[in-house]
Amino acid sequence: MTLLAMADALGIFVFALSGGLAASRQKMDLFGTIVVALLPAIGGGTLRDLLLDRPVFWLEAPYVLLIAAVAGALTWFVGERIARFKTLVWLDAMGLALFAVVGAQTAYAAGYGPIITIVMGTITASFGGLIRDIVCNEVPLILREDIYATAALAGAGLFWTLSALGISEPIAFALGGLSTFGIRAGVLVARHIQPAARKG
Amino acid sequence: MTLLAMADALGIFVFALSGGLAASRQKMDLFGTIVVALLPAIGGGTLRDLLLDRPVFWLEAPYVLLIAAVAGALTWFVGERIARFKTLVWLDAMGLALFAVVGAQTAYAAGYGPIITIVMGTITASFGGLIRDIVCNEVPLILREDIYATAALAGAGLFWTLSALGISEPIAFALGGLSTFGIRAGVLVARHIQPAARKG
Amino acid sequence: MTLLAMADALGIFVFALSGGLAASRQKMDLFGTIVVALLPAIGGGTLRDLLLDRPVFWLEAPYVLLIAAVAGALTWFVGERIARFKTLVWLDAMGLALFAVVGAQTAYAAGYGPIITIVMGTITASFGGLIRDIVCNEVPLILREDIYATAALAGAGLFWTLSALGISEPIAFALGGLSTFGIRAGVLVARHIQPAARKG
Repeated sequence: MTLLAMADALGIFVFALSGGLAASRQKMDLFGTIVVALLPAIGGGTLRDLLLDRPVFWLEAPYVLLIAAVAGALTWFVGERIARFKTLVWLDAMGLALFAVVGAQTAYAAGYGPIITIVMGTITASFGGLIRDIVCNEVPLILREDIYATAALAGAGLFWTLSALGISEPIAFALGGLSTFGIRAGVLVARHIQPAARKG
Repeated sequence: MTLLAMADALGIFVFALSGGLAASRQKMDLFGTIVVALLPAIGGGTLRDLLLDRPVFWLEAPYVLLIAAVAGALTWFVGERIARFKTLVWLDAMGLALFAVVGAQTAYAAGYGPIITIVMGTITASFGGLIRDIVCNEVPLILREDIYATAALAGAGLFWTLSALGISEPIAFALGGLSTFGIRAGVLVARHIQPAARKG
Repeated sequence: MTLLAMADALGIFVFALSGGLAASRQKMDLFGTIVVALLPAIGGGTLRDLLLDRPVFWLEAPYVLLIAAVAGALTWFVGERIARFKTLVWLDAMGLALFAVVGAQTAYAAGYGPIITIVMGTITASFGGLIRDIVCNEVPLILREDIYATAALAGAGLFWTLSALGISEPIAFALGGLSTFGIRAGVLVARHIQPAARKG
């Protein structure tokens, strides 16, 4: 299993958890929760592959659907307890970071330049959470949060810059992902410290 | 015309009716209603074909668009009267059943295994109603109803099991579709008998 | 640069402005506004290319993404002032007209008949605004406005009719686009003159 496939699988797992949590707030049944968990988990990568005219990744690797299904089932059984800890925003930040570099790496490996690489990372990372929020009829996180798509864009941009400079892939991958996660985490922590600064 | 094409056409017709009814509640004009009826009617099959990298089915068979347009126009002229009979949920159940087996059969015929076959049936069946509800800014049926995606999944799963056992396609097709419809119909009837059990 | 590419670029610019204005009403930050401006600007053409199984147009012409990004940034800096003039509906009408003929021309040039040509023009034109409104969690313009999709359909239909009659492409293109814009503009002006006729 490659680094890319592992990061993809982890991103799928955490986005599926975030989707399952959103579904569990709507009091869905077990299978409904699993289906709704699947949509955000595979939405980003699916759109990426459709846009790049690649085979959709989960058609040849159905096990990723099982990963998402397990995560969805997990949230159904323990969702109420997890939901108390604002877990959703942290899982979302992890998924954002992973999909930003996975999406950027996929476009970069296909030979695209900086713009497409950065856009593909940003779209891949944002689309999963976007579709989750739209399906659950919530105002998308991407609209509620000041620095969200920006964080994905920054990570994808750092990945491209490092790759273009000849830095080895695992390092560019790790630094790109960490920068996205660091920016999002910084925003989440800063808001917690200064709750008065939060508008809603 | 094959069995698959006929089932697809019927699914398109009933989902177009359900889309037209949803649009008519928004007091749209004739052409607007037709356009909104088209989206759910062809949404499921379109996503299925994009994901499986097949030619989108209605590009080569534009008559299905006319079927959907006629259904949409029909709801515009008689929508007010039909809407009284909770017709939407029953049409939706028929579309769900038809698209569940059509989607599963398409994936099965393309050589995919049980997971992709079941997932493709479920996605194909759920996506049409999902996009209808999202466009009309309603909370999706898939979220409001306890047993919805589950019914599609069960029908697609039964279709795969019977096909893998060597049962002839029309029988697997009919039994898969009937099981999906039966589960949904059972839920709808049970709720009607015990209205107190309904939460909203 | 061909006529088609120029019209596409202009459509992208005005739809990006409309997307940026919608985003600015949600008080997003600069990069978030740019991302949200991108979605509607490239949504219609992207869906068109995916459906027709063509390479997605912006993969090979990333400069259109920069056009959309500049338009998005513009709305962020001057959005408050522009928003006062009901600019959104006029920009939306221009994008609708441009994408209706661009979408129709693309399908016509690929050898499709009248139905697919008209449907592709209508879908291409409607989808950009639809995705913008869905993402911003507003009731889509396509549902609120009586004559919206109809205008795109009429323009795409006129384009096909003129092209089938052997009229040269630039003329069919201009007349198709002007008819769509004229119909929408007529509706917008008529409503302004008779405000009592407006329901909401």
